[in-house]
Amino acid sequence: MNEENKIGNYKFVAEPFWVDFSGHLTMGVLGNCLLNCAGFHAADRGFGIANLNEANYTWVLSRLAVDLDDMPYQYEPFEIETWVENVYRLFTDRNFAIINKDGRKIGYVRSIWAMIDMNTRHPADLLKLHGGNITEYICQDVPCPVERPSRITLADGGKLVSSHRVVYNDIDINGHVNSVRYIEHVLDLFPMSLYQSKRIRRFEIAYVAESYFGDRLDFFTSEDKSDESKEVYNIEIKKNGSDVVCRSKIIFD
Amino acid sequence: MNEENKIGNYKFVAEPFWVDFSGHLTMGVLGNCLLNCAGFHAADRGFGIANLNEANYTWVLSRLAVDLDDMPYQYEPFEIETWVENVYRLFTDRNFAIINKDGRKIGYVRSIWAMIDMNTRHPADLLKLHGGNITEYICQDVPCPVERPSRITLADGGKLVSSHRVVYNDIDINGHVNSVRYIEHVLDLFPMSLYQSKRIRRFEIAYVAESYFGDRLDFFTSEDKSDESKEVYNIEIKKNGSDVVCRSKIIFD
Repeated sequence: MNEENKIGNYKFVAEPFWVDFSGHLTMGVLGNCLLNCAGFHAADRGFGIANLNEANYTWVLSRLAVDLDDMPYQYEPFEIETWVENVYRLFTDRNFAIINKDGRKIGYVRSIWAMIDMNTRHPADLLKLHGGNITEYICQDVPCPVERPSRITLADGGKLVSSHRVVYNDIDINGHVNSVRYIEHVLDLFPMSLYQSKRIRRFEIAYVAESYFGDRLDFFTSEDKSDESKEVYNIEIKKNGSDVVCRSKIIFD
Repeated sequence: MNEENKIGNYKFVAEPFWVDFSGHLTMGVLGNCLLNCAGFHAADRGFGIANLNEANYTWVLSRLAVDLDDMPYQYEPFEIETWVENVYRLFTDRNFAIINKDGRKIGYVRSIWAMIDMNTRHPADLLKLHGGNITEYICQDVPCPVERPSRITLADGGKLVSSHRVVYNDIDINGHVNSVRYIEHVLDLFPMSLYQSKRIRRFEIAYVAESYFGDRLDFFTSEDKSDESKEVYNIEIKKNGSDVVCRSKIIFD
């Protein structure tokens, strides 16, 4: 198979309600676009949600790490490229590049996905899926200069900074809080003054467990002061006072 | 000018993160699509935001009333048509039709817009705009079987049901809470059980004043029990304990 067919390319425009006060695309909307591209790319190659659902399997996003030099500005066109870098038995690595209106790569993303059996909720063997044909799409010679998702820890357990009762708009078709809403809730923990003086250089999120309508989500943050040139925050979201749902890290510079 | 050029037609697909637990497009996302269509339609005809901003004017949405028989389902394509029904000195009426994957009109929308001078914040005379050329696009022979936006009142002042501190993701490029976020916050006032047993038949919102980062929004609701066949709620949003920001009405049936 030639490399071109392995890489999906999808076009977008930074719509007015997709941008923040500064006129730049929000990280939540970028997350939405990335996950849509993953869906389009998989569907076009026969391992999308629709194909899988027939066999009672579905994709589950485990981790996402986004590194950005810039963000598209209101009304600007941008493109997202995506490809599969690795396929293991229980996980696959999917990468993305974000390309601005001038054709320059302004960001890269690494993501890790699992597939689960919707009946048993157990992970499925990706190498056996569709006779292993997902491995035909592996593409390892495209650069993706972004650090892999890290292990996020809150050394001191973090400080409780916000609580949120899960509402109607948080919930997706599976009955869970959707992946993009967690990103938005994490962004909403920080004051406007921080967004006015700095920009998000890196954003990471690890999805640990599901949460549901009516759950109380508690947001804990811990500032990592090891690098004085940046503001680095580790975030943990717990539900109903106990289980960890997500962990996230934001680097502002 | 022929009628076809007066009506704009825009195509969408109900993306996975645009649908709710039931798999149907959310009203917030539909609002986003409607407002984008208004923007595309105006821009294509020379009276869009970009043209206006050069002259220090901008469009302001005043009221929106949506009547729906159905909503697009996940992955379904849908279309939105929009046209200008009336132009007065200080307001213009813009209508919309929502067309499902089978070409059937499943909803209609009426909206009222003003134009303001961004320096003085005063309304501008639409009939003088661009030599009055917006009036060339008036299109009154297209049916739009939806009641005009009503005057929403909370007879008893309503009951305080929720408060929200305005956060980063609420704010648009003008520094205000964006019109779509108010719709989402209103939808989030209602329990999942209501969405599970009924669907939104009509949604209205009237934008009264702007709110800003850090403002506290208080949500008051009052149930109108005059029609036993439906659940009708009037909603008022006030900021910082005093000024009304928005009023809304939802009819579930």
